Amino acid sequence: MKVIGKQVRKVDGFELVTGRAKFAGDYQFPGMVYGAVKRAGVPAGRITGIDIEGARNTPGVIDVLTARDIPGPNLIGVLPPYDQPLLAADEIRYAGESVVLIIAETAEIARFAANLVSVSIDPYDPILTVDDALAPDARKIHEGGNITLSKKLLKGKGKAALEKADVVVEGVYETSFQDHAYLEPETVCAVPGRRITLYASCQSPFHIRGHVAANLNVPAASVIVVQAVTGGSFGGKDDVATEIGSLACIAAQRLNRPVLIAHERKESIIGSNLRHAARISSKTGAMNDGRIIAREITVLLDGGAYASESPFVTMKTLIHAAGPYNIENVEVTSTSVFTNKTYCGAFRGFGVPQVTFASESQIDELADKLGMDRLEIRRINGLKAGDSNPTGQVYAQSVGLQETIQVIAAQPAPPAHPDGGRYLYGTGYASVAQGISNGAEGIDVAGASVQMSQDGSVLVGIGLTELGQGSRTVWAQIVAEVLGVAIENVSVRLVDTDAVHDSGPTVASRSTTVGGMAVLKAANEVKKSLISMAALMMQTDEENIELRDGFAILKMDDSARIPVSSVATAAYWTGFPLMNLAFSKAPEANFDDDTHQGDIYIAYNYGTHRMDVQVDAMTGKVKVLNHFAAHDVGRVINPLGLAGQIEGASLIGFGMAHMERINYAGGIIQNANFADYALPSIKDRIPTNSIPVEDHNPTGPFGAKGAGEPPVAAAAAVFANAISDAVQFRFTKLPITREDILNAIQQRGNHG
Amino acid sequence: MKVIGKQVRKVDGFELVTGRAKFAGDYQFPGMVYGAVKRAGVPAGRITGIDIEGARNTPGVIDVLTARDIPGPNLIGVLPPYDQPLLAADEIRYAGESVVLIIAETAEIARFAANLVSVSIDPYDPILTVDDALAPDARKIHEGGNITLSKKLLKGKGKAALEKADVVVEGVYETSFQDHAYLEPETVCAVPGRRITLYASCQSPFHIRGHVAANLNVPAASVIVVQAVTGGSFGGKDDVATEIGSLACIAAQRLNRPVLIAHERKESIIGSNLRHAARISSKTGAMNDGRIIAREITVLLDGGAYASESPFVTMKTLIHAAGPYNIENVEVTSTSVFTNKTYCGAFRGFGVPQVTFASESQIDELADKLGMDRLEIRRINGLKAGDSNPTGQVYAQSVGLQETIQVIAAQPAPPAHPDGGRYLYGTGYASVAQGISNGAEGIDVAGASVQMSQDGSVLVGIGLTELGQGSRTVWAQIVAEVLGVAIENVSVRLVDTDAVHDSGPTVASRSTTVGGMAVLKAANEVKKSLISMAALMMQTDEENIELRDGFAILKMDDSARIPVSSVATAAYWTGFPLMNLAFSKAPEANFDDDTHQGDIYIAYNYGTHRMDVQVDAMTGKVKVLNHFAAHDVGRVINPLGLAGQIEGASLIGFGMAHMERINYAGGIIQNANFADYALPSIKDRIPTNSIPVEDHNPTGPFGAKGAGEPPVAAAAAVFANAISDAVQFRFTKLPITREDILNAIQQRGNHG
Repeated sequence: MKVIGKQVRKVDGFELVTGRAKFAGDYQFPGMVYGAVKRAGVPAGRITGIDIEGARNTPGVIDVLTARDIPGPNLIGVLPPYDQPLLAADEIRYAGESVVLIIAETAEIARFAANLVSVSIDPYDPILTVDDALAPDARKIHEGGNITLSKKLLKGKGKAALEKADVVVEGVYETSFQDHAYLEPETVCAVPGRRITLYASCQSPFHIRGHVAANLNVPAASVIVVQAVTGGSFGGKDDVATEIGSLACIAAQRLNRPVLIAHERKESIIGSNLRHAARISSKTGAMNDGRIIAREITVLLDGGAYASESPFVTMKTLIHAAGPYNIENVEVTSTSVFTNKTYCGAFRGFGVPQVTFASESQIDELADKLGMDRLEIRRINGLKAGDSNPTGQVYAQSVGLQETIQVIAAQPAPPAHPDGGRYLYGTGYASVAQGISNGAEGIDVAGASVQMSQDGSVLVGIGLTELGQGSRTVWAQIVAEVLGVAIENVSVRLVDTDAVHDSGPTVASRSTTVGGMAVLKAANEVKKSLISMAALMMQTDEENIELRDGFAILKMDDSARIPVSSVATAAYWTGFPLMNLAFSKAPEANFDDDTHQGDIYIAYNYGTHRMDVQVDAMTGKVKVLNHFAAHDVGRVINPLGLAGQIEGASLIGFGMAHMERINYAGGIIQNANFADYALPSIKDRIPTNSIPVEDHNPTGPFGAKGAGEPPVAAAAAVFANAISDAVQFRFTKLPITREDILNAIQQRGNHG
Repeated sequence: MKVIGKQVRKVDGFELVTGRAKFAGDYQFPGMVYGAVKRAGVPAGRITGIDIEGARNTPGVIDVLTARDIPGPNLIGVLPPYDQPLLAADEIRYAGESVVLIIAETAEIARFAANLVSVSIDPYDPILTVDDALAPDARKIHEGGNITLSKKLLKGKGKAALEKADVVVEGVYETSFQDHAYLEPETVCAVPGRRITLYASCQSPFHIRGHVAANLNVPAASVIVVQAVTGGSFGGKDDVATEIGSLACIAAQRLNRPVLIAHERKESIIGSNLRHAARISSKTGAMNDGRIIAREITVLLDGGAYASESPFVTMKTLIHAAGPYNIENVEVTSTSVFTNKTYCGAFRGFGVPQVTFASESQIDELADKLGMDRLEIRRINGLKAGDSNPTGQVYAQSVGLQETIQVIAAQPAPPAHPDGGRYLYGTGYASVAQGISNGAEGIDVAGASVQMSQDGSVLVGIGLTELGQGSRTVWAQIVAEVLGVAIENVSVRLVDTDAVHDSGPTVASRSTTVGGMAVLKAANEVKKSLISMAALMMQTDEENIELRDGFAILKMDDSARIPVSSVATAAYWTGFPLMNLAFSKAPEANFDDDTHQGDIYIAYNYGTHRMDVQVDAMTGKVKVLNHFAAHDVGRVINPLGLAGQIEGASLIGFGMAHMERINYAGGIIQNANFADYALPSIKDRIPTNSIPVEDHNPTGPFGAKGAGEPPVAAAAAVFANAISDAVQFRFTKLPITREDILNAIQQRGNHG
């Protein structure tokens, strides 16, 4: 391998660090105007009147739109029937809901005018907890009731098998809402025309295209969505980009002027999806030798006001709740519920962090109850190739969990430390498995194009988005490897819905695997043309040619070589295609929708983490001394990018476990800013040491598997286990803040 | 057929007639600056100094570039080794040559400053005629001498067979330079970035991309060329767009500001390629029964200062000089020559109008000498399926020349007219054959993509450009027909080099045939997915499904139908690809480069015209009474578009034959404006009656052949023959202006 697995520079790094990257907010067009919305401000009620006079009369205001001005159905969402209005027409379901759109000469005027809009709302008692929503006489937030989706997984005898266990541990675990907190808030810029163009900070351009077209009431072929360079998404810029993207396009076509809408930080928190808060009730039964024989788990997800990705997150929690273990009997119920709060959707990890925290906490409790070593119990129960996982799926290869446990076991022992001082010390372990790509949950296709020019340079197009995860570099590496050219000669273009097949959303750690396979396929087709041409030029058979170092080379005589640019030029003039558009589809899933047993994912990423912490018993301050994060990624394509993914995901897991909590009061978020919403800053960075394990995955390019999400779950869980170990107190709610730690220490009379 | 052959509205007509179409000059970006060049002003010499101080000190001037500032090789051209500088460095080869580029805050300032630049030139005696260029001791305009290309075609015994003829006619024919005279002069707009984007009024975006990249010294994959809506090209916006496109991109990257360069009309005439002036010496030998047995033709083309498309035009004249006739012995020599004049290149007809004028004039002379009917001699000698044409190629089908002669013969007789009055009346005939697509001359590939969205709307992308010829409508019709959807649901996107395979230049009437085949191929792949999905949905076999009227329909039960949008949505979720990128390649040509015998084109368009004219013997004013233009187009796809193409091309031929002449004096064009350069205006429109003949072409979509160019040649030739008939004087030079007609009448003592 010349490029795969090598240390390469991020292909878009230069433009990012030099500030040349063009984010959606950097787009400027003559005559551009700006949009801002008036939000409901109350969590539930019925609109009885909207007074827009003050806004309309504000100098600099150009247009004021309400629900009546939406040409199409005024609905967005992830799954039909879509349930979320662009602008609320009658009912208000959460406080951050948009009601009126103001278009003005500047963003400041638009915001000022939005404040002058008066929306009269006849308020309802808001439904603010899962329990209230599920109460028999609860008001229905949506016509169909307050349950978004409820699913059951049953393997073997399910919970009935708990009776046969020597020991059973039982607990209830809770996690909080979490904000994506990307550096760049949601931003879109619409340019009107015969075909309208939307430049968007977004995650799923095709999803946006469909909603923009529907709400504009035009054919999808009339809408172009171009992903601007995007400053983070983590699952967050999906629904909201369809909302503000549709609004911007509607205003742009109406006014025949470009329209930019950019969220302020507050809007990004209150008006865009969050990670689901969860309550997980769990029982685990094991024999005295440590073998787990049954788990029963009930997951309740607070999904907020609209469905968004709740159905998929429900599925994901269902499948992952029992953890990466070989357990004969599993019963999981997972239910997502509507409440009058900001809607919840995709967020890196997608439900797995919540259930992994619960599962891994309970594994520790089980080990303690059995008096076993906490890593050993994971080794005993951990999945191996040939084992049946909680959905009953058996993988013949690429089940690297045991190797991750081994490498974690082989790490240096935690630093020695004195007993009884001001500082408490603890070590935690956590294992995780996370399914790669959408699998049976949804569509799993991707389109990619590879085009070589006559000068041998290569352009890659793909329907999946670069969100900071480094996918462009991975795709460029794949192409460079296949075509034998330097990575500097490979460009990856911005995603443009005109250019490739609808590739579904960029979610579920599928960019490297499903996206990478599409890129690989397209590159291989171009390679075929080059090899054919080179064989003609060298008057030899195709099998005697290889592409390497920018040349077509005769295998038997290294000195017989033609620059790939000459081969490309000749191929063009001879009529060999130098561009290919490939379509990659994950293998068919085979899954029972009643029991949720069967083959669901093309592969899993497996991981085991160890974390050593020091807790200041006086202040509750935590110092992470070591964090080892071993993940089976199949094959490392970009070592630096992989380390970045594991470090970044771990920090999000750490934030979830230790700092981040959306505070509601009466249905209103109280900390919708980064002063009050505690978020790991650069100073809170933990010393993650990422350790890749390579257990070849036949369904990924060069054997690779996705890696961007699984560390979130493992890091959150390992933090909870490490702190619980240090404080000698089982924490069952995330985040475990300093205050929680101090409270626990006081409760145990354990302060220094 | 539901769409093919039907009267449909031009798909981009609405935006054009409402002024919403966005031409290159309509692009505006914040911070945009404007470019203008200083031109040499003398036709030949050596640059001894350039004084840019005055320009640089002009308020509003931002940058001044000379040849030294070009990062790359400072060369453009059609064929390597490229011979034409962006900015002249040392030698001046024609008066319109660019020497210095000024970038300023406005175009006016840039032009003003350009006038302040002083270029010191040590002048040479300019070489201004083909004879001077070919003189043995002539100064070499290029290092390799003054012959651009010289080629010979030899069929049978060639000119030696003239000896066996009963009669031989002999003549020398000349044609003038002609300007493309599009409504929109050449314009480009470059936007800097990590990847630079050039919006260009242009004909061949991939050609531009290569030259921009080379002259910027960056990989081609870093350059995006998007064709703006283009206000005419006719072959003219090829070389010049690479010149100003490269200059704009170089300045844009240097300044990190968008740069627009738009030619004024004068620059469009003096600084961009023209139609080659030609001198054609011809002998035709026939038997007394009218059968032509041999032709000997020598073509000399004045190509101006640079090669441009001269090599291809040379080839085209070589192949077409002997006309659409079945002649056993043919000898043609064609030579293009450098002179110190504006370079000549592609222009609708591409050499065929020049040689057809000569050939068809001589056919008339031969008929007269034999005392035969002028149409009858064409019928006797005209090609039929199975005949061997001048390159020895034999077509088994789609040789519709005889049908065009028949339909012309069947038209109403010319209006009766009095003898001996002030007005002279004449009728002319001309036949033509013009090869479709590039064939053995060059590369003949095209890439196209067809993408259906989940709502059933369709987007078409293609690497060939819409220049006003109506190709987008034809491509949309093909897709609508194949996918069974309304043409209103089909969009054709702007050409973008990122999106499709390098499709070569949009020339040679290849858009409908080679481009159409690529579109057809891509549409058929999408159709396969839809049919497969519909068969699954209807639980039947694929062969039982058809796509029609926006539905997938069960053939045996018309009422069993599913909207195509539902099928598309299901196909997406099931994983059938709804987008395809197809690559179309013309069948291999088989051609001997020495004799130019063999199979060259995938098909020919054949045509026969009749024109009836009235000439005012007092003023020389010509009135075209009737113009019948019959062309074998294989299959009519868009009747209205076809009529527009035949009418438009005929008017260009008429302009060439009657009005248009570039006047040089000392190497300087004297009439570089539309006041002095006579051009048919809307008032000069001739009453062309286009008559399609359909002789199915197996190499085109639905049997179609290109039609955009051949009427130019036929119309020019038929005008010359009609006027010669009216005046009873054989005109041998084009244009035949009013003045020429009056002179001829006076010469013959024939004035009213």
